Amino acid sequence: MRAAVMHGAGDVRIETVPDPVIQHPTDAVIRVIVGCICGSDLWPYASMESSETGRRMGHEFVGVVEETGADVTGVAVGDVVIVPFVSSDGTCDFCREGLQTSCRHGAHWGGDGDGGQGERVRVPQADGTLVVVPAGFDEALLPSLLALSDVMSTGYHAAVTGGVAPGTTVTVIGDGAVGLSAVLSATLLGAEQIILMGHHQARTDLGREFGATDVVTERGDAGVARVRELTGGDGTRVVLEAVGLRPALETAFAVVRDGGVISRVGAPQYSEVPFGFGDFMHNVTLTGGVAPARAYIPTLLPLVLDGTIEPGRVFDRTVDLDGVPEGYRAMAAREALKVLVRP
Amino acid sequence: MRAAVMHGAGDVRIETVPDPVIQHPTDAVIRVIVGCICGSDLWPYASMESSETGRRMGHEFVGVVEETGADVTGVAVGDVVIVPFVSSDGTCDFCREGLQTSCRHGAHWGGDGDGGQGERVRVPQADGTLVVVPAGFDEALLPSLLALSDVMSTGYHAAVTGGVAPGTTVTVIGDGAVGLSAVLSATLLGAEQIILMGHHQARTDLGREFGATDVVTERGDAGVARVRELTGGDGTRVVLEAVGLRPALETAFAVVRDGGVISRVGAPQYSEVPFGFGDFMHNVTLTGGVAPARAYIPTLLPLVLDGTIEPGRVFDRTVDLDGVPEGYRAMAAREALKVLVRP
Repeated sequence: MRAAVMHGAGDVRIETVPDPVIQHPTDAVIRVIVGCICGSDLWPYASMESSETGRRMGHEFVGVVEETGADVTGVAVGDVVIVPFVSSDGTCDFCREGLQTSCRHGAHWGGDGDGGQGERVRVPQADGTLVVVPAGFDEALLPSLLALSDVMSTGYHAAVTGGVAPGTTVTVIGDGAVGLSAVLSATLLGAEQIILMGHHQARTDLGREFGATDVVTERGDAGVARVRELTGGDGTRVVLEAVGLRPALETAFAVVRDGGVISRVGAPQYSEVPFGFGDFMHNVTLTGGVAPARAYIPTLLPLVLDGTIEPGRVFDRTVDLDGVPEGYRAMAAREALKVLVRP
Repeated sequence: MRAAVMHGAGDVRIETVPDPVIQHPTDAVIRVIVGCICGSDLWPYASMESSETGRRMGHEFVGVVEETGADVTGVAVGDVVIVPFVSSDGTCDFCREGLQTSCRHGAHWGGDGDGGQGERVRVPQADGTLVVVPAGFDEALLPSLLALSDVMSTGYHAAVTGGVAPGTTVTVIGDGAVGLSAVLSATLLGAEQIILMGHHQARTDLGREFGATDVVTERGDAGVARVRELTGGDGTRVVLEAVGLRPALETAFAVVRDGGVISRVGAPQYSEVPFGFGDFMHNVTLTGGVAPARAYIPTLLPLVLDGTIEPGRVFDRTVDLDGVPEGYRAMAAREALKVLVRP
């Protein structure tokens, strides 16, 4: 079969790779209907060292079950399934607590294994990992179903761990696909004020449609001053940091209200957090982390199916497999917000 | 009147200072019955630059109301009151939310103003700040009442913000007075396992009496390995960091379970926190902060009065005002756990 392989910074190729086969009785093999490129794929795209064998890419996809192992009982051949970005057994203590990203038998896609930017994928722990989409759904919903595999669930994780509730004031830092999903999630959870910090108008316009009440286009100190101005000087109770770079985190600390919560879901590209005596005196909490998408899909799926939310609107470009390298380029150049792949 | 004044590292003197007087109609003047020396007083004691005017010290005390301003209605002359370590108006939004340390009209003791290591103190915002002890209490309870003004409330803040609840597993880092108060608080909130990390046997023995189920005396990597061993390899769901130094925080990250919470109440003597990609992938939360003692005293006071808790057991030495300099020396040398002052 064919799949995307990253060989180094800026070097994504479409290659013929081995077809996936059932290796364990808990596996399933999935044919990918839609996959996509993640903002986090852009980190290796910017910095990966050159590699001859390369690295398989893609961790968000919706597919059709083509084959199941002998022990798989929860999904059947022909089922359309949403595949969260980490596999999980669904039975260990972490899975039962809703922290499937820490599953005792979980694994990430890509690297040495199959990735979602390809034609097929072997899914381990199929019963725990996959969420079946009820038959007969509208195909137009595919982008929104796909969004549940990572980006929307990640935004929702930010809002949930940040404690967004009816009446909460929220700042969302970053107008990428995760930031916009965080806006939509904060709206869903009843936030009263949602200030979106970003400066790409097409994106912030979608943010407004997703429920942002204010958009702050200024960066750095000017942006902080503007958020303070919009909140009577106090900052917001919750800040959702959807970038992953240190300046975004510094902004988060600068716009959070005393006693407030910063929830970060942008994968940190830093190792140290500026969180010393001052923010201690303000009783600031830093939470968030990698999103256990599997935990949220059962909540969000009905809202996609009944049209309450349209998280798939973050996809603004579609490519086939051969178009994946160009998709990376366009996302890295910020010409595209998020690229959907139809293999 | 006489009071303790710090003039530099290792230099605490008892001096004659102006008697406090009512300056605002919301003030009260308190005669101190018992005060004490805080672990946080030891930071300037170790590092303060030499100063001719010096700095008034002490922020935890119980006293008798001697005089009230015209607008004070909640306390009367003769009342015995617990004085939390920050003054607060009791009416602003932060106070109503229980975050009196961020009160819009609050202030800290000491520095240029009166401190609790002296004979008398002017208390601003008396109605909001002071908690009256019901008349007729047993004088033997004074140390425990005093502990509510800071150290016990600080340990309780750690446990509450850390989310300790029935069945929780907890590691407490530090066997100082705050750490022991955190152990007692975790016990009170129903923790199932409380691992106390510390290596002063007299202190860890008191920790066991306060409810610690395990004591880890090893430091560094060996201590981390021991906590992991005691928790099936996972670490504990909650870690209460009661030191304030970076190695203690590093230990906290090393012993917290995936999805767990570190609550820190040791005033940070660092500006950067090692909290990057790895702990993000483990969904670790860092919370805590300076404790709004005023918020907790109404909950804890009845438990002191009825003998449920004896937080005053952390005091293992008593001095008069002239003994305060020696009290600092003994605490800094770790000869005393916490020194009570009877002016």
